[in-house]
Amino acid sequence: MTHTLNTPERILLGPGPSNIHPRVYRAMMAPIVGYLEPVFFTVMEDVTGLLRELFQTENRLTLPLSGTGGSGMEACLCNLLEPGDRAVVCIAGFFGTRMREIVERCGATPAVVEAEWGTPIMPEMVEAALKRHQAKLVAVVHAETSTGLLQPIEEISRIAQMYGALFVVDTVTSLGGCAVEIDRWGVDASYSVTQKCLGAPPGLSPVTFSSGAVEAVGKRKQKAQSWYLDLSLIEKYWGEEHVYHHTPPALMIYALREALLVVHEEGLDARFARHLRNHRALVAGLEAMGLTMFVAPPCQLPTLNTVVIPDGVDDVRVRRALLDQFQIEIGGGFGPLKGKIWRVGLMGYSSSIEHVVLFLSALEQILHGEGVSMPMGAGVRAAMERIG
Amino acid sequence: MTHTLNTPERILLGPGPSNIHPRVYRAMMAPIVGYLEPVFFTVMEDVTGLLRELFQTENRLTLPLSGTGGSGMEACLCNLLEPGDRAVVCIAGFFGTRMREIVERCGATPAVVEAEWGTPIMPEMVEAALKRHQAKLVAVVHAETSTGLLQPIEEISRIAQMYGALFVVDTVTSLGGCAVEIDRWGVDASYSVTQKCLGAPPGLSPVTFSSGAVEAVGKRKQKAQSWYLDLSLIEKYWGEEHVYHHTPPALMIYALREALLVVHEEGLDARFARHLRNHRALVAGLEAMGLTMFVAPPCQLPTLNTVVIPDGVDDVRVRRALLDQFQIEIGGGFGPLKGKIWRVGLMGYSSSIEHVVLFLSALEQILHGEGVSMPMGAGVRAAMERIG
Repeated sequence: MTHTLNTPERILLGPGPSNIHPRVYRAMMAPIVGYLEPVFFTVMEDVTGLLRELFQTENRLTLPLSGTGGSGMEACLCNLLEPGDRAVVCIAGFFGTRMREIVERCGATPAVVEAEWGTPIMPEMVEAALKRHQAKLVAVVHAETSTGLLQPIEEISRIAQMYGALFVVDTVTSLGGCAVEIDRWGVDASYSVTQKCLGAPPGLSPVTFSSGAVEAVGKRKQKAQSWYLDLSLIEKYWGEEHVYHHTPPALMIYALREALLVVHEEGLDARFARHLRNHRALVAGLEAMGLTMFVAPPCQLPTLNTVVIPDGVDDVRVRRALLDQFQIEIGGGFGPLKGKIWRVGLMGYSSSIEHVVLFLSALEQILHGEGVSMPMGAGVRAAMERIG
Repeated sequence: MTHTLNTPERILLGPGPSNIHPRVYRAMMAPIVGYLEPVFFTVMEDVTGLLRELFQTENRLTLPLSGTGGSGMEACLCNLLEPGDRAVVCIAGFFGTRMREIVERCGATPAVVEAEWGTPIMPEMVEAALKRHQAKLVAVVHAETSTGLLQPIEEISRIAQMYGALFVVDTVTSLGGCAVEIDRWGVDASYSVTQKCLGAPPGLSPVTFSSGAVEAVGKRKQKAQSWYLDLSLIEKYWGEEHVYHHTPPALMIYALREALLVVHEEGLDARFARHLRNHRALVAGLEAMGLTMFVAPPCQLPTLNTVVIPDGVDDVRVRRALLDQFQIEIGGGFGPLKGKIWRVGLMGYSSSIEHVVLFLSALEQILHGEGVSMPMGAGVRAAMERIG
């Protein structure tokens, strides 16, 4: 065993984690204090206030859960669903499938609305499902990490509301990288993560519940099956009563606070514009190199770019060369997309034009070595032109 | 909002978190890497190997869950129990009560064996319960954080085994501070935390499952109700297959690795001896000051010392003075012990003779100010004599 941890300094352009902002690393060095100290309550208030700003919501119940994104998905579903309930689950990728799995484990019945991976869910299909089944909620993924698709939300929200269903949205790969407007869109429950577009380490899952969702939790016939993720208990610690539920992961909360401050200082509009600009530069570069994006333009996710792997090119060998020669991590596809696409994240602190240029140059070198013919230098030139 | 986090440097002698070892803070600064990089698999192997050493087990399924101790309690119970199962739950404090709560949320029926808070569970009562009810498991708390009691384990284990029940033990406040011998004691499932006797930040819950417990999980009729805490999925990521389940909290895992290395370098025997020595010095000091321990000597927990608050002394005022004047945090009692005891942790990096001396001196000053008469200097003198 090497005693000193000696992990390499990677450029993380995969589906997450992305690179951690240096200020966030430093914030984690602050002394730990007891979880009932007033100074810690102030830290918690900073975090919940900044999270509300980011989620664009007034929701009182807005806080980071002490687990990764999966715990957020489970918390949203298992606090809202009871055995016997029905939920419309929209599936157009891996994370939609996971939602169905959790709905089933809650003892609820999923009514699935499907679209091909990489294409958006059609609102009329959600409406058809709601006509057939009286559902307690509709669940959809805003930004599908497995496909790179940005799902339009507002029309589905309107339909859910029309049929009296709560609306649950996965914002794991969008929060902090593109607009997430909980209140304006009429979202009732949403969960996200810290390690993608926020530039913080993985370990927490920010969630937000509307007053309607909180009311639904209050009307449960039986307790939520998970004690650890029971929001009625967790909010008593995060609220004014500060009733002990579990020891909060204080250093992760310090890290999240700093990451949210970085977001706040950059400004939401400027931050989303940066993500979009770098995404467009990357796409322009890739297309100039003769590559094809997996998702059609109107639904391309600015934070996670999916590229079709050219015929005859070895997926794993290219990714290994990026990592070994250039310290760049990108993601492969999984499930039906394994070996078919690359997933190139431009999230949070990792989303910079320098990373775009470095990645395009590196990919050009490697693909050239793989025998793919392309006009050398065209990718970077197109990216720089697109940036303007 | 203060932009820079400015938490004070506390001496954490409460029920946890305890102080974080400086090496652990530094280890968290290592660059984050992807969760499928071989270098990260090496970090994971280091952690699981060191955890086995600490749990004194050969259990293959030994890993840190991505949540705090409560997630470990829930994981142990919800992976082993199914609706309709019965579990004998031993309650002699707050955390036993929580076990019952989680057993109920699993749809299982608890058969409760109770002892007064601060007294141990009697093995014959466990046997009587097992005679009455066929139970799938027996659950007990090794070190009750709410009372400061160290529960003898071996006899209860023998009885559980005799009746064919799995044996689940909460080692939250013992692991890393006193011997936890999973294999020798015949424990089937155990969970702990990182922020007490390990000197790491809160955020992970080390768990270990015997082959018998793993077999029981494999024989389930239905999936565990929690997807996030489903050990059959989590072990596929921590095992050789490295199948993605959720993004691991990498920096917390770096921290745990370093904390476990610190434990390994100190050596288990030396570490337990240090905790015991400082505990004895503290008790000698407190008794020389005329104070009384809440738990009788044979069952006193070396990592968490509970002291009876003298008549007429204001609990909260004393604790506030310790914090404000001396930067020392200790815990109050809760539930039936609120206002009746103080809980003084000497855990992990916080367990040092310097802290014992400082605490005794500070408490003497404050109690003297509260009008408690005692021979000045007697506490520290007795502690130093006891240390030898």
